[in-house]
Formats: sequence, C-alpha cells, structure tokens
Amino acid sequence: MSNNSFGKIFKVTTWGESHGEAIGVVVDGCPAGIELSEAEIQHELDRRKPGLSEITTERKEADEVKILSGTFKGETLGTPISMLVRNKDVDSSPYEPIKNVARPGQADFSYQMKYGLRDYRGGGRASARETVARVAAGAIAKRILSIHNIQILGHVVEVGGIRAKEVGLEKIRENVEKNVVRCADLEAARRMEDKIKEVKAEGDSVGGIVELIALGAPAGLGEPVFDKLDAELAKALMSIGAVKGVEIGVGFKTARMKGSEMNDEFYIITAEPAENTEVQENYLSGEQEGEIRTKTNNAGGILGGISTGEAIICRIAVKPTPSISKPQRSVDMGLMQEVEIKIKGRHDPCICPRIVPVAEAMVALVLVDYLMRNAPPGI
Amino acid sequence: MSNNSFGKIFKVTTWGESHGEAIGVVVDGCPAGIELSEAEIQHELDRRKPGLSEITTERKEADEVKILSGTFKGETLGTPISMLVRNKDVDSSPYEPIKNVARPGQADFSYQMKYGLRDYRGGGRASARETVARVAAGAIAKRILSIHNIQILGHVVEVGGIRAKEVGLEKIRENVEKNVVRCADLEAARRMEDKIKEVKAEGDSVGGIVELIALGAPAGLGEPVFDKLDAELAKALMSIGAVKGVEIGVGFKTARMKGSEMNDEFYIITAEPAENTEVQENYLSGEQEGEIRTKTNNAGGILGGISTGEAIICRIAVKPTPSISKPQRSVDMGLMQEVEIKIKGRHDPCICPRIVPVAEAMVALVLVDYLMRNAPPGI
Amino acid sequence: MSNNSFGKIFKVTTWGESHGEAIGVVVDGCPAGIELSEAEIQHELDRRKPGLSEITTERKEADEVKILSGTFKGETLGTPISMLVRNKDVDSSPYEPIKNVARPGQADFSYQMKYGLRDYRGGGRASARETVARVAAGAIAKRILSIHNIQILGHVVEVGGIRAKEVGLEKIRENVEKNVVRCADLEAARRMEDKIKEVKAEGDSVGGIVELIALGAPAGLGEPVFDKLDAELAKALMSIGAVKGVEIGVGFKTARMKGSEMNDEFYIITAEPAENTEVQENYLSGEQEGEIRTKTNNAGGILGGISTGEAIICRIAVKPTPSISKPQRSVDMGLMQEVEIKIKGRHDPCICPRIVPVAEAMVALVLVDYLMRNAPPGI
Amino acid sequence: MSNNSFGKIFKVTTWGESHGEAIGVVVDGCPAGIELSEAEIQHELDRRKPGLSEITTERKEADEVKILSGTFKGETLGTPISMLVRNKDVDSSPYEPIKNVARPGQADFSYQMKYGLRDYRGGGRASARETVARVAAGAIAKRILSIHNIQILGHVVEVGGIRAKEVGLEKIRENVEKNVVRCADLEAARRMEDKIKEVKAEGDSVGGIVELIALGAPAGLGEPVFDKLDAELAKALMSIGAVKGVEIGVGFKTARMKGSEMNDEFYIITAEPAENTEVQENYLSGEQEGEIRTKTNNAGGILGGISTGEAIICRIAVKPTPSISKPQRSVDMGLMQEVEIKIKGRHDPCICPRIVPVAEAMVALVLVDYLMRNAPPGI
Repeated sequence: MSNNSFGKIFKVTTWGESHGEAIGVVVDGCPAGIELSEAEIQHELDRRKPGLSEITTERKEADEVKILSGTFKGETLGTPISMLVRNKDVDSSPYEPIKNVARPGQADFSYQMKYGLRDYRGGGRASARETVARVAAGAIAKRILSIHNIQILGHVVEVGGIRAKEVGLEKIRENVEKNVVRCADLEAARRMEDKIKEVKAEGDSVGGIVELIALGAPAGLGEPVFDKLDAELAKALMSIGAVKGVEIGVGFKTARMKGSEMNDEFYIITAEPAENTEVQENYLSGEQEGEIRTKTNNAGGILGGISTGEAIICRIAVKPTPSISKPQRSVDMGLMQEVEIKIKGRHDPCICPRIVPVAEAMVALVLVDYLMRNAPPGI
Repeated sequence: MSNNSFGKIFKVTTWGESHGEAIGVVVDGCPAGIELSEAEIQHELDRRKPGLSEITTERKEADEVKILSGTFKGETLGTPISMLVRNKDVDSSPYEPIKNVARPGQADFSYQMKYGLRDYRGGGRASARETVARVAAGAIAKRILSIHNIQILGHVVEVGGIRAKEVGLEKIRENVEKNVVRCADLEAARRMEDKIKEVKAEGDSVGGIVELIALGAPAGLGEPVFDKLDAELAKALMSIGAVKGVEIGVGFKTARMKGSEMNDEFYIITAEPAENTEVQENYLSGEQEGEIRTKTNNAGGILGGISTGEAIICRIAVKPTPSISKPQRSVDMGLMQEVEIKIKGRHDPCICPRIVPVAEAMVALVLVDYLMRNAPPGI
Repeated sequence: MSNNSFGKIFKVTTWGESHGEAIGVVVDGCPAGIELSEAEIQHELDRRKPGLSEITTERKEADEVKILSGTFKGETLGTPISMLVRNKDVDSSPYEPIKNVARPGQADFSYQMKYGLRDYRGGGRASARETVARVAAGAIAKRILSIHNIQILGHVVEVGGIRAKEVGLEKIRENVEKNVVRCADLEAARRMEDKIKEVKAEGDSVGGIVELIALGAPAGLGEPVFDKLDAELAKALMSIGAVKGVEIGVGFKTARMKGSEMNDEFYIITAEPAENTEVQENYLSGEQEGEIRTKTNNAGGILGGISTGEAIICRIAVKPTPSISKPQRSVDMGLMQEVEIKIKGRHDPCICPRIVPVAEAMVALVLVDYLMRNAPPGI
Repeated sequence: MSNNSFGKIFKVTTWGESHGEAIGVVVDGCPAGIELSEAEIQHELDRRKPGLSEITTERKEADEVKILSGTFKGETLGTPISMLVRNKDVDSSPYEPIKNVARPGQADFSYQMKYGLRDYRGGGRASARETVARVAAGAIAKRILSIHNIQILGHVVEVGGIRAKEVGLEKIRENVEKNVVRCADLEAARRMEDKIKEVKAEGDSVGGIVELIALGAPAGLGEPVFDKLDAELAKALMSIGAVKGVEIGVGFKTARMKGSEMNDEFYIITAEPAENTEVQENYLSGEQEGEIRTKTNNAGGILGGISTGEAIICRIAVKPTPSISKPQRSVDMGLMQEVEIKIKGRHDPCICPRIVPVAEAMVALVLVDYLMRNAPPGI
C-alpha cells in the first residue's frame, strides 16, 4: 500500500520525483465557485522557491505552476484541480557516483529497504522538492481560509541556539518577509543569518524551530478521539521531511507546570477592555462583547482536540539539513562496504526559512479540511 | 462529519461515553488465525485500570472486557472483533451542579461549540475513559507485533521537573511495572511519587514526559510524504487527550545541532563487536553480521518517514490533569455569567503513569497498520 | 485487509457472527441533536425479523436492540452510536455434521479459501443475520432522511416468474405491509405466496425482484466519476448477500431503446397541471411552480451520477435461498471427497420479503451519506 | 465533499474536463519493481480512442499518454504514477449557443443543481472523455494482473435488440478486436453495425449490453459484508456514465430460478476429464487435479462476495448515447424557459464498442485492488 494523499474532504494527492519530469498535485474536494488564479498559487510558490538568497540552495527553479483542470473562467468548478510544476534546473550528475551510498540522515537506506529500488537522483520522491506540491495545494487552502477570515502566520523562532525574542503579531506580519531567515525579531535574524553562513562555510548545516499561528479559526473545529485537531496538525507538520518534533501551545513546557498554572480560565468579554493577559495579542481580531474566551492560551487554541476560538499555536523542531559536504562514514549498499562520503550538489545550510511556507501550507490544509468536515447546519 | 476510527488496514473504531452504558471498540482488519483470548486483552486493561495506587483516581472499575465477535475456538476469524467494557462505578452527581460550566483545560466549551449539546457526565466522550478502547485494541496489535518479535516499551522519564536518569533497556523492562509512577529510574520514581502526592495535597496536579521505544521493527515500515511513520506516530500520540507535544529521536534538541552531529552514520555489522555507541543498547536484538546499521540513533529509527530497523523512539509531553480542586474562574455557559469552580469527582493528580499503556497501545496500532500496509511479496 | 464499514461521512461499521454473542453496528458521523429512541430502531428491526409468517425461517429472534452510546436524554450527541442485538435462538447442532462441507451457493468455500478457517455455525459472518446491523443503522439514516422529507419505499415486484402489476405510490404505501410477500399488487401477492409455499414443500427455494423508490431526494446529490450516486447505490444493494443484479430507472431495458426514447425531456412546472406522464405519480410531493423537472423518469432520478430531484428508482435481482433440503452434490473440504448434502436448519424459501427492509436501509445509508457530503453553503 | 478516487490500496485519482488542458490520473499504490512503459498504456488508450470507425465520434484525438512520475529506468518506483493526456481536437463552438440548456439525458441539469456552475464545453467533467484516465490506470492494473495470469475479456453481446450467440472464449479472444462493434459473434456484429448506422442516419442512437469476463482470478478475493467483490464490481461498472444496470453470473435470470437450479454444485477435479458442463470453457486455465471447483457457474465466480476461482462474469446495460441530433424539448436554465434543442457536436451513435476497454479497465482496477487487499502470508 502507498498513500500520497492528505485530508478527508479537502483531499490533496501529490506526485513527482525531484529529478523527474514534474511535481504535481490534485486537489479534490475544493468547493465550486471560488475565484482562483495561477498568480495566487505562484505567489506562495515564490515564497518557497530556492535560490532567493545566499543561505538557500543554488538550484534555480522558476517553479512556474500550471492549473490543468478544475477551474473555468477564473472560478473553481468543484471538480479536481490538477496543478503541475516542471522540474527544470535538474543536474543529476552529482548523484551518479554515490547512487548506491546511503547518505546519512537521508532516506536512501530506508527507501531501499522498503521498495528494493529507488530514483536516487536528488533524493527522488524523498526530496524536499516534494513540498512544491504541498505549497501549491496550500495556496488554495489559504484562499478558502481567507474567505473565512482565517490567517496563518509562520516565523522562525530559533536557529542554531539563537532564540528570537517574543514580538507581537504586528511585528510578525511586518518583519517576516523582510529578512532571509524569516524571523520576526530582526536583531536575532541577523545573528541567525551569520550563524547559517558560518556553518555553511564549515560544510555543515544547522537546525531550528518554526512557530505557526492560525488566527481567526472559529471554535468547534476538530473531532474527539483520534482525529483531534492537534493530532492532525501534529501529523501534518511531522510529515514535513526535516521535522523531528511538534508541540501545541506551551508544548513540552507543560511537563513542568501544575494544573493551576496550565489551565486557561474562561471569561466573558465585556464592554470594558480585558485586562492584559500574556497572550492577549494572539486573540481573534473579531472578538465581540459577550463571547466566551480564555484569559491565557497555554492550550494553543485547542481543548479536547477541538478549537476554542483562540489563536492556534504550534511549534516544530527542524533538523539540520542532512546534506553536508563534511566527510561522513557510510555504506555503499551495492558493494556492501563502508565508504566515506562528501555530499555535493546544492543544499540549504538551514532549511528553516524555506520550511515556513511549507508548514503554513500544512496548517492551512488541516484547517480547511476541518472547516469542511463540520456538517452543514440543518443536517 | 465525525471520525472515531484509526488505521487504514488494521482499523479500530471506538465508541462510548464516560458515564454511558459501556466503552467499546471494533477492530476491523485483524488477520485470521491468530490465537487470542480475553485474558490477554484484560492484562493490558489491568495496567491502565484506575484505582491501582494512591496516586491515581479512586474510581473503581474492574474494566472487564468481553469479546463479542470475530473469534472462534480461540482464534481470530479475520472478521471484525467487537469488544465491550461496561461502565460500572459511575457517579454522575458531581457533574450535575456544574453541567453548564466550562471546566478550564477541559473540552466542555469546545464540545459545546461544536455540537451544541454534550453528555456532561464525567466528560462524556471527551473523558480519558475513552482510552479503555484504545488499550483493548492495542492489546490485539501487541499480540500481532509479538509474532513479529516487535516489542513496545513505555516509561515515565519526567514528572513535575524531576527527570529520570537514562537507564538501559534492561532496567526499563525490569523496573517500570515495579513502581506506581512507571519510571525506570527507581530513585527518581520515589521523588516523582512524592511530588505527585504533594501536588495532590494542594488540590493541584502535575505534568510530565513519557518515552516510548519500539524494538524489533523491521526497516521499510512507513511511507513517503504525508503518511510518514513519524507523522502517523505523532498523530497517534497527540490524539491522547493530555498530550501537548511529540518528538522523535532527539526531538527538539535537533534545533541546536549541526548536520554533522545529527546525522547517524551507517556501518556494516561485522563479526567483531561494534564499538560502543551512545544508543547501542537500543539496537535490535536480532542484529546479524552483514546488516547495515547506524552508529547512533538520533533519528529515532526513522529516516524519510520510513523505519531504518533501529529502535523507534518517541517522547510525549503530558499536561497536568486539568481537573483540580483548587478554585478556578470560569463561565457558566447556560447563565452566561462568570463563576468560580472547584472540581470534585475523582481524578489522577498526574496522568503520566496511566498514559504509559495507552501510549504503548497507540504505537502498537501504528506499527501493526504499517506492517500490514506493506504489500505482500510478489505483488 | 478487511473492511466492514460503509459510508464516507455517515459511516457504519458492522460486526458479528450468526451464532456468536451478538450482532452490532457503530454509526459514526450522525449529526448531534437528533431525537432518537430505541423504539424507532426496533420498529425497523421488527420488519426484518424472522418468524413473522409461514414463508420465513422459523428461527425466533426478538432482535431487541440496545443503544450503548452516542445518545443522551433522547438526543444524538454527534459521537458514535453503538447498537447491539443479542443472538438468542441459536441452534448450531445442524452445522456440526456438515462443518467441512461447502454448501452450494453459500460462502463456505470462498471464506475457507480466503481465511483458512471460519465460524461454520449458521454461516458465521456470511449469514444474512448480518443484515440486522444494516437495518439498525438504516433506521437512523431513515430518521435523518425523514427530517429532510425523504422517504424510501421497497416492494416485491416479482417472485418465481410471477410479476406484480404496476400500481401507484398510494397502493405501495398502503399494501406492502399488509401481506407477507410485501408485494403492492395484492392479487399477485397471493399467487407469489402460493408459489413460495409450493417450492418450500419441494424442499426448494425461489428468487425474485425487489424495487426501491426514494421520494423527495433533492437534486444535486451525488458526485462525478467514481462516486456517482447510482454507482454507490449499486454497490450498496449488490452488497446484500442474495443480490445478483442491480438496475437504475429502466435498467436493462435501455439496451433496446433509442436515445430519443430513453432521454427524459425537461420542462418547467407551470400553474397549469402537467400533462399526464408515465412517472407522474413518482414526482416529488413538493413540486413547485417554476421548478425544472423531467416529463418521464427513465433515468431513475439520476443523471451523470447526480440526482435530478425526480424519484430515485432501483431494482434488484434476488437469488433463491441457497439453503435447500433437496439433496445436492458437494465436497467435504476436510476429507477432500465428494459428498451428498441436504441442508437442515431453518431457512426462508424466498428471501425477497425480508430483503425489503434491508434494501431500504441500504438506500437510506447511501442517501444520508450523500446529503452530508454536500458542502455546507458558504464553504 | 468530492471524491474522484477509486480503490483502497491501488488507488487512482482522475481529473480533467473534456475541453480543458488535459485529462489525467494519479495511480497511487502501485507496487515497486514492475516493468512499465508508455507504449503499454498507449495500447489500451488506442483501443478506446475515438475516430476509429464510421460508428464512433469523429473527434480526432491521438490521446497520447505521458508518464510524469513514479517510474525510473522502465520500472515502477512504488511512488505515485502521474499520467497525462492532452486534449487537442477541442471544438467548443457547438456548446456556446446551448450553454444554458439542460441537454436531455445529460448531466447539465444535475451538475448545475449541485455546483451552481459548470464547464459546459463538451460536457466538462461529466464527459465520457473522463474515461481516458480510467483506461490509462486500468492499463497498469492489467499489467499487474497479467503477472498473476489474470486476464479480462470484454465483448458486446447485444445492441439495439440484436443479441450475439454465445460463443466460446476462443472466439471472444479471436473476434472481438476484428470488428468495429467488438462483438464475438461476427454475424451478429454485422447486423449490429447496420443497426448503428441506421439509427445514426436517423439522428438517433442505440443502447446495448456488454459482458466482462475475468479469467484466472484466484479464489479468496473479496470481503464479507459491504465490500463484497461483486458489490465493488457493481460500483465500478455503474460508475461508467452510460451504464444503467449491472448483473453478476446469471444476473436477473436468477429471479425466475429455483435454488436447486441456481446453486452451483462443487466437485473435485480428478485425473479423468470433467464431464461437460455449461461453463466448462470458462474454467481457469490452471485447473489442477485435486482442486475444488463448481460444475456450473451461475454465481459468476463469486459466493458471499468472495471469488471462488471460477471465471468472474458481469454484464452491463448501456444506454443509448443521449447526444442526438433529433429535436428534443428542454429548458434553458438561464432564461428559465422551455426550448427545442438539436445536439450538434460529434457523438458515438452507440457507445458499446468503446465502453469495452473502459469496462475492462474498471474490472481490472477492482481485481488489482482486491489482490493487494489480501494480507501477506504470515501477517
């Protein structure tokens, strides 16, 4: 069995190998009558695109998207939307000499064990290039979410031990796309950039942490038991190649908290402005007198697997890019002997900045799916 | 839409409210011809059962399981296995007075927003009592895994800031069921127990961290892209009510590592014993000369979403039980006014020890499903 | 893999063997806030129940249903509804002597080949007793459909070569439950009954045809391509054990028709009453001036896999009950030798009358699922 | 919700509108290591291709397939196989004047009711052109089946009231591709061809019946209850646009049979040749001494929803093409007034011959999926 689909109602199926003809995605379950253009999708792809700065891979891909079905006269038809991005700047030559070598930290070995063969060029299906399809699908999801006034913000909060200061939502909106690291604390961003350049110079790479915030999601999204909203977010985010951890709200900090500290107390919004609370800035913009809200948001906007209407907050641990030019010991799976390997090819020394749009896409896919899972009123 | 099922091939569907007639599960997709008895399932339920020690809830439930279908003469038929556990020690009286109050940290508010009504007795469907069904299904999964020499070990590694020392697999096997905290470091276990009693006396609760280790899983389990093995594990574990974070292998530590530190180098097992490596004890018992292995296991046994044959390692952040007797501010959703609430009823001051068998069950369900997803040879 | 579930949104999972403890079903995806009582489900089960007349099996089963979860104070919670019917009048003795014999026309041989073992008592999972669960789930589906003014009528139109005359909807509503054959043409019903008694006396059985009519389904239910409404109905109906054929609208007659005969012309309802057309009586009760309708309904209410708002009409071919007391040649799969077999036990000489509520349940399950698949307005 | 996927393990997702850029399909779940070339898929597409004879539409489409992913060096990778066929001979001009008219027998009205808008050019997603994707996917399924010695034969057995004589398997293999009607009885084929030309000259169309035979499928494919093999075949075949009925084995004839006639008796193959039986020629080629078989095959190779190892036999009722140039009454949905319509464009006067490869593809998709659903030995 194999499954390359995500979502139950807004269902995306992706395909494509890194050095194959193209990468693509079929979005099935998009409602009819939504205005949609290639430009909108292209905008998100451009955010993910390689080659934008000194700290990303030099692979140059225009990553131009084509919509092949599912729209007519600029509107969605309710039928599957097929999108395709050609692979153009493909150079498979660095992969031929090491085609049988299990690159440390990569999927070569595990794919070989599962399938018995693989497309070794550029990592094949296991390449991060696969995320082109996620971002394209996510752009449609974001389009739908925007109709419902739901917005997703991603930003880098830590790289190689350098932590960003907590800044407000305004700064995140303002600063993230202003710097190559996608960090909202501009001072930290500069240090992160230096750090990335430093490890790059060493032929090494570095990891970090990305935070995702969904604003405007209504209360009531999610499901009991297995399909909790946080469970699906965890799956969605952990399915991004480099992610080794996911946390919701205060996350791992909860382990050291007491119930009386962790629990978010409820209150009713009154005409008087709410007292200052630590997450006040994360509140929904649309808050209204008479609504029930929580004073704090340690839960990250989800209780019992169902959204509370507060900001949904997740953080992901991103591992350092495994492709490094430093020599490493490994095994040639063909010759069955140990070898030394130095990875050539073009790689990001820190994948965090480019994971931001990918992770946002995954959060968007989850939220759209849950929006649509909620039964229509009257049924 | 609603979905109370988990798994694609080995598919479990659970049902039941905390104070309803019963809790149950249908396991669909269990292979035929497997010996299975109620005693085996009961054994796992007994590990989860409340009332076993001073630090768990006083609700007394025999949690006696009945198999209603899917077996014949002690063997599975390949047809759905329906299991049922009656709710017996049900006392709904503490819930009547607060039936409209949104208990902080609980699902009352979000359920009310989603469904418009709820069974408020004992948390209804949102109660941790729901995990009875997971453990029953997981017991069957473990039975199948044991045929394949796959074993799952869970243990508590942190409670209220107290961390267990790293001990070997042997100690984990030996010590976990020996103490009420299910911590393999017996000295830390004692301090954790004291801590739990202390917060209990305060009318409060405390969180912690649980680690899960799967030994013996073959290389090649998992899938590219969305259904990565770690993604599904993250979903499975995050779907447990109290979990706020999941990490695989080194997890969040990866954010501060370089590629050259994070990458696990490959080598070939030779007749000579391998040099000591940090995760040596986590190696498969069945390691054989000529096999490809990794020297370290920072990846937690999964690369590119597919198992490598090394131990699969996950950790979960468990929040403090939200039901505390300390006074909290909240809202009566019926009267729409703010109130003070002190939770009565019987609750675990720290849910970590009882989450161990539940989390093991979830890991087992994921692994069995992926074992069965792998196509038969020849197809 | 095994799958005992039906439906994508309103999803039912059934379990149970004929001579096991019980038969049951979990209904997942039922909306919250629907009034539901055991009495309502019992009513449908009573229509299916054996032992109601001389022409059905003598197995006496009260078939008393228990709801174990998913409702509270008489309303659905939106959580899984688990229902259970105990098997009481179980007599496995006739099955012991023939436990290894592949009964002709039964699933013994194919189950044995698939699973390698089976519960041979009363057909095990392959028994028509399994349909208890379908009818219980279907009763909930009918409950929801009734809120939407959708009604499903089933009636026997042919038995052993005896065809019922076409009668109007009024007669179907009036007559079907008045006679043991469930045929709306009372004169034909009498002859069918005689026929059934005649074959029963011979130790034989006889087949027939059942028609299903769904009234009041709105236009727009269904999906393009694979999940066409008629495709799902075909699956649902063909999944009933004894069914060997399914047709929609004019069905197989279409093979001899021209396009100009087959096509249903569209018109607009005016204040003037529509001219008489052959299916006029099958029209929606709620027809309104200005609506677009078809003059005829050869299509059976479905075009391009999507409902048109006309009556949905299906017919199923029901095979004669394979359990007959006439001697038959077969094979003992244990001894691997040919044998003669006379089936004892208690069997319906014609299953058509009791298939009526089962087939209605399946149509109801399909329609509810498609009602709920349609996205809420605004998404 | 929308679903354009078919299959649980060998899962195909199709996309594309008749006059859009392209038609395509993603095949997810194809095992790794299977030799596969575009030529093989092209061969099946060529059988379906329009413009092959006087009795098919004049739309000229090379229908050239491109594989965009999932293969490497001529072998499947186990990753999704994306295939694309460009729409080239597109002439949307006949559709502009009637863009708001609900063509009788077509999906215009029901799509409009479901989606509120549609691509009216050439029927959009509802066009039979969608079956290009089914045939491409089916070609891969057939490739896998051939490895397992499973073969699927389709042939036209009735057109416009003209029935083919029953001929043996040899004649079917030999004659079907020899005549434009794809009828194995060459004499009937000539009369059918004349009939089709006759109705075409009248500006009309005609229906028929197609039979599908699957040879070599092992016993044990299928599942109890809802996912019976015959249920899934019924869905697969009924999902083809023009199909109004599906029957298995003797099908509707069963309604007039007694149990003693319908039941297929079992026997054991001995060294002595089996006596002549009516379906002898449909037997598996691989029959071996000691195997259990049935003397007749009224069941069409399926008992209790699971294959018996006999030939699997289905027949489908195909409606006359709804696009006819004869004047018809209908409704302009924009102006909301009744109109007369004469369909222009290029249409098959009888779709039966071209449905043969499509229906074969659907049977192949079902069988491959069930082959792969069967758990690997040892699990």
